[in-house]
Amino acid sequence: MLSAIDHTGIAVEDIDASISYYQDVLKLPLVHRETITEQGVDAVLFDLGDSHIELIAPLGPETGVARFLEKRGPGLHHIAYRVDDIEASLAALAAAGVRLIDATPRAGIRGSRVAFLHPASTGGVLTEIVEPAPEGH
Amino acid sequence: MLSAIDHTGIAVEDIDASISYYQDVLKLPLVHRETITEQGVDAVLFDLGDSHIELIAPLGPETGVARFLEKRGPGLHHIAYRVDDIEASLAALAAAGVRLIDATPRAGIRGSRVAFLHPASTGGVLTEIVEPAPEGH
Repeated sequence: MLSAIDHTGIAVEDIDASISYYQDVLKLPLVHRETITEQGVDAVLFDLGDSHIELIAPLGPETGVARFLEKRGPGLHHIAYRVDDIEASLAALAAAGVRLIDATPRAGIRGSRVAFLHPASTGGVLTEIVEPAPEGH
Repeated sequence: MLSAIDHTGIAVEDIDASISYYQDVLKLPLVHRETITEQGVDAVLFDLGDSHIELIAPLGPETGVARFLEKRGPGLHHIAYRVDDIEASLAALAAAGVRLIDATPRAGIRGSRVAFLHPASTGGVLTEIVEPAPEGH
């Protein structure tokens, strides 16, 4: 069902200040930047092997990521698994008793379709599944 | 310097109870189990593409992972980046001003050599670098 760690999502207060650590210290190429209004975040992606590091910063104080930062401070926020068929994966997860935050896919970064699983079903790990956009998107 | 997300480390209270979610629900193959006394953890690895998911459970109440669980509950604990030459990577990170928890490598899971970077230098992310054991180890 899962083919890779698509990305690890990291919550940051200030996205521009955080980019320099990944770009200048860890030497990761920044490959994408996007405001995802639906998730209330500014996001950037860095390539790392077959995966990405995603930095997310809140668009406003009422967003989920702002609440996360207030409660826990900056740091690891979620893990995203890559899938080929997000509808089939959601059906299999629901059948296995996993509580879904998104019963149907929604728009994710860079043309992907994504859905989140509830941390209560995943050992406290906010978990996303990602079906990437078709090649050439 | 970094070639992949080697693994994402997830803190759990009960390793046997947690294995079933990764093995039976997410369908990931469990490929290794080890007690790492030096880090105070029981650990298991699941294969996922070119990366792994690592579950860690504390060996006792005085361990770092036990304190993490007490403070934050189970969930994402650290990210580990794969490197080819851990001494060269540590030297480059130190030269870039990153605060190191381990100035020299120590024994990690499955014959690897590892070192941790301080979250104060990495945006709150407990970060490990991993030089895997040579092939055939």
